[in-house]
Amino acid sequence: MKATVTVMLKPDVLDPQGGAIGRACASLGYEGIRDVRQGKIFEVKLDATDEAAARRVVLELAEKLLANPVIEDFQLEKLED
Amino acid sequence: MKATVTVMLKPDVLDPQGGAIGRACASLGYEGIRDVRQGKIFEVKLDATDEAAARRVVLELAEKLLANPVIEDFQLEKLED
Amino acid sequence: MKATVTVMLKPDVLDPQGGAIGRACASLGYEGIRDVRQGKIFEVKLDATDEAAARRVVLELAEKLLANPVIEDFQLEKLED
Amino acid sequence: MKATVTVMLKPDVLDPQGGAIGRACASLGYEGIRDVRQGKIFEVKLDATDEAAARRVVLELAEKLLANPVIEDFQLEKLED
Repeated sequence: MKATVTVMLKPDVLDPQGGAIGRACASLGYEGIRDVRQGKIFEVKLDATDEAAARRVVLELAEKLLANPVIEDFQLEKLED
Repeated sequence: MKATVTVMLKPDVLDPQGGAIGRACASLGYEGIRDVRQGKIFEVKLDATDEAAARRVVLELAEKLLANPVIEDFQLEKLED
Repeated sequence: MKATVTVMLKPDVLDPQGGAIGRACASLGYEGIRDVRQGKIFEVKLDATDEAAARRVVLELAEKLLANPVIEDFQLEKLED
Repeated sequence: MKATVTVMLKPDVLDPQGGAIGRACASLGYEGIRDVRQGKIFEVKLDATDEAAARRVVLELAEKLLANPVIEDFQLEKLED
């Protein structure tokens, strides 16, 4: 199976990288861009026949290895065969 | 509207960061993890009433500011109101 | 001039990416690795003849665009002609 | 010992993130900024009494786990007790 996990800074944590991209958009003439936030995405390929088990493993990994839950939110976006 | 763009290294480009996470998974006892690849995700809030226009702007930005098309693939994952 | 700025998570902020690399090192047989932390580095080329002015501009940029001072420390590592 | 390794995209590889920061600088009124490039920095703490051995281990790790030598250059910046 293939799991897709996203990790974003929590909404109240300033994201200077995203902010720089937002400003750069404006300087290129894209005036309608109001906000950009940058995060990380992980594609995890795993051996699992059982969707519930795969979900459990991936969420555990996300919490231990992919995200810092104090400043970041993570989400299992997709779980595909 | 809110657009979500993902940027991943092309499949034939080595991703050492993803590889390190894959190895770390194994060392934590998650034996079923076969491969991890890490990418970037961008959430872009923009003023646009027309979906086609929003899509065009975001894809242009992705190509100019978010990704290096020589080594990375980008994709507009979602476009939400 | 060329300025080099480093941005690291503050020492008390968990760094899961660095942690994953540390575990991966151990799994590759490098037993002496005790800790890895990952940060960002920026090389900024700027027109400035006066070192003091360059330093001031770069530190201002670092605080506004490169780092989130709540969770990250930044440092001007080098300033070269 | 503590080793500091930097990883930058090779000079001929486009760096859109750095480019966005450069444009953002200009849009904030910093007109003298000519170019920004973004890379990664790793601080590795390791048990080693012998500087030559530490250097060898860290360079090996950098090549295997920290950088993709096809598109990135890495450098051992510092090795401190």
